[in-house]
Amino acid sequence: MQYVTSMVVFKFYCAKITEKHGGYNMEKLKELQKYVKEQNLNVAYISNYEDVQYFTGFGSDPIERVLALIVFPDADPFLFAPALEVEDIQKSGWPYKVFGYLDHEKPFAMIADHIKEINPNPVNWGIEMNNLVVDRLHALKKEFPSANFNHDLTPEVQRLHLIKTDDEIEKLRAAGREADFAFKVGFETIKPGITEADVAAEIEYQLKKRGVMQMSFPTLIQAGKHASQPHGDTSTRKIEDNELVLLDLGTVHDGYISDASRTVAVGKLNDTQADIYKVCLEAQLAAQAAVKPGITAAELDKIARNIIDKAGYGKYFIHRLGHGMGMSEHEFPSIMEGNDLKLEENMCFSLEPGIYIPGVAGVRIEDCVRVTKDGCEPFTHTAKTLQTVFK
Amino acid sequence: MQYVTSMVVFKFYCAKITEKHGGYNMEKLKELQKYVKEQNLNVAYISNYEDVQYFTGFGSDPIERVLALIVFPDADPFLFAPALEVEDIQKSGWPYKVFGYLDHEKPFAMIADHIKEINPNPVNWGIEMNNLVVDRLHALKKEFPSANFNHDLTPEVQRLHLIKTDDEIEKLRAAGREADFAFKVGFETIKPGITEADVAAEIEYQLKKRGVMQMSFPTLIQAGKHASQPHGDTSTRKIEDNELVLLDLGTVHDGYISDASRTVAVGKLNDTQADIYKVCLEAQLAAQAAVKPGITAAELDKIARNIIDKAGYGKYFIHRLGHGMGMSEHEFPSIMEGNDLKLEENMCFSLEPGIYIPGVAGVRIEDCVRVTKDGCEPFTHTAKTLQTVFK
Repeated sequence: MQYVTSMVVFKFYCAKITEKHGGYNMEKLKELQKYVKEQNLNVAYISNYEDVQYFTGFGSDPIERVLALIVFPDADPFLFAPALEVEDIQKSGWPYKVFGYLDHEKPFAMIADHIKEINPNPVNWGIEMNNLVVDRLHALKKEFPSANFNHDLTPEVQRLHLIKTDDEIEKLRAAGREADFAFKVGFETIKPGITEADVAAEIEYQLKKRGVMQMSFPTLIQAGKHASQPHGDTSTRKIEDNELVLLDLGTVHDGYISDASRTVAVGKLNDTQADIYKVCLEAQLAAQAAVKPGITAAELDKIARNIIDKAGYGKYFIHRLGHGMGMSEHEFPSIMEGNDLKLEENMCFSLEPGIYIPGVAGVRIEDCVRVTKDGCEPFTHTAKTLQTVFK
Repeated sequence: MQYVTSMVVFKFYCAKITEKHGGYNMEKLKELQKYVKEQNLNVAYISNYEDVQYFTGFGSDPIERVLALIVFPDADPFLFAPALEVEDIQKSGWPYKVFGYLDHEKPFAMIADHIKEINPNPVNWGIEMNNLVVDRLHALKKEFPSANFNHDLTPEVQRLHLIKTDDEIEKLRAAGREADFAFKVGFETIKPGITEADVAAEIEYQLKKRGVMQMSFPTLIQAGKHASQPHGDTSTRKIEDNELVLLDLGTVHDGYISDASRTVAVGKLNDTQADIYKVCLEAQLAAQAAVKPGITAAELDKIARNIIDKAGYGKYFIHRLGHGMGMSEHEFPSIMEGNDLKLEENMCFSLEPGIYIPGVAGVRIEDCVRVTKDGCEPFTHTAKTLQTVFK
């Protein structure tokens, strides 16, 4: 999925992933605690619910309510959560304390009390500056007026996410297998006369019938010139003969996502359609073949971009080559110009060149991969040579 | 949908609602500008993308990228957005300027330049303190070191959302009709032996076939004792005979949501099942009948709660009676204890009492309504008397 945009409401609902995520991540939690100690912090306040899930195994968007993981240098961490979540958290195997609050109670006063039981006067705080909103920072400052909140935990938390554990990789593989199944359903469904929406409906229906309840995003099916809008959505446009059809989809498996794109032919392609497919595929395969520890994110992007540039389609490749992924698609590393991060084993990201000629056609080919000792392992295995799904 | 919780990934993807939202809301934008002037603010910085959508008609979650609406007391507002969005924004009919930035550019320096063209030294800023994250506030402070950022726009923006316009109400009605259709599909599908997931899959499949591409949250189907977890999710558990089955669902129509719950019988109910249904229905109907301008949110909650309390199930009604809704379900007013807000015409919210007896059964009945001159209008019309969908 590239350059994703979103309608407001999905984030507020969505069924919860509870214990399925496989429990707390003690290894990463200990690493965080070690960091807290090294940095002479008295309290680390983890506010991002995805990060709370990452460390504790308990994943739940509290929306406007308060969910926080509090970590200390020399004491056990605790979770603070809406009261209704407390039982689930306890059942999930979380081995430390969890405190709940009711809607009419004052969460920050309560958090302060719990913290003061461990440290009556914590001065140095670490917060997630890319997540904590201003009014909650004010609420914390009110409870701890002499504390300083100048330490940003974001870089360290992002660093912890970057290298996936074996357990995480296993889940990414499983999600990838679900995406491959989804492509199979899609390829069997696509034919002239049915709508993009029909194809998406059939894919998600067949997945749900297998117990795959969550897509990582609404399945994107775009046919013909509609696919030249790289951030459009699935419509009720009918698929026609002699078109390219772009599928971009993914599932959620135990809290970890898949994300892959294929573009397939219906009927006979004209020269332009055939050529942009060929060039895009070449770019994708070249980038994937180049992945190994030590190469930089920017270098990978350049490899794919050069191929598309040379073929004359450079101005139609209007997004980065890929994004980091794991529990979501907005992890690191970002595979783009300017990112000189050297790739390491078990970093995971997408490789998804695309060529979008406005009003004509669009193609994108995407696998997510993990870096191995000397190359990479893709999580999806659906063929990338041009598939003609309806002749 | 009550006390919703969420898996991480939905919010990062999701197809975009673009122009469908019916363009900018000039009336509300002018009200905001008036407020900015009255409060002697030099700049209002709207960072919440839902609010950007509300005012501009352009709805898109920029994820980690920057999207902002900048409003001045005496000059035209402008939008600042990722470059890839600019064309869509222009096409959407937005009548003012929009500035884009590329991934490798510095968005806050660019925003500062655009602002300084209008006001070289804006001192008094209004920000959305419940949305703006700390590191972005720091970025703004760096660009405007002598400005003050102490004015919170949140209460005013929430107030603007509170009273729905005719156009918004029309969309809420349309979304409600889609939810009614979804219940019809669900009721026809439910029978012993099929799974909760099957029912959810069928509902979403039939909706997609009609071109309803977005649910406002993943359809929740919970049967038997599973329904006693008010924030569980749809599972692959098979529906059995003589159970209550809870359906909680909603769609998105032109950026506005529906959200409704029904609980239906499969086979013959025992006394407890029948009784909790009866009591819950009585509570829901009583609350709905009591809605009118002037009553407070807390009073409504109390009406439903008293009925459930008196029947001896008070401790099993563990959430507020309802939530405000419109573009999402986390709007105002919250229908709960302690909220003494007097309801006014065209406020919109859910009424959804529930009784959840752990390990036994759960029931919830929910309509969203708008306050009318002398009562209320529900957006969903599916029968609430006990439906036995399979005998």
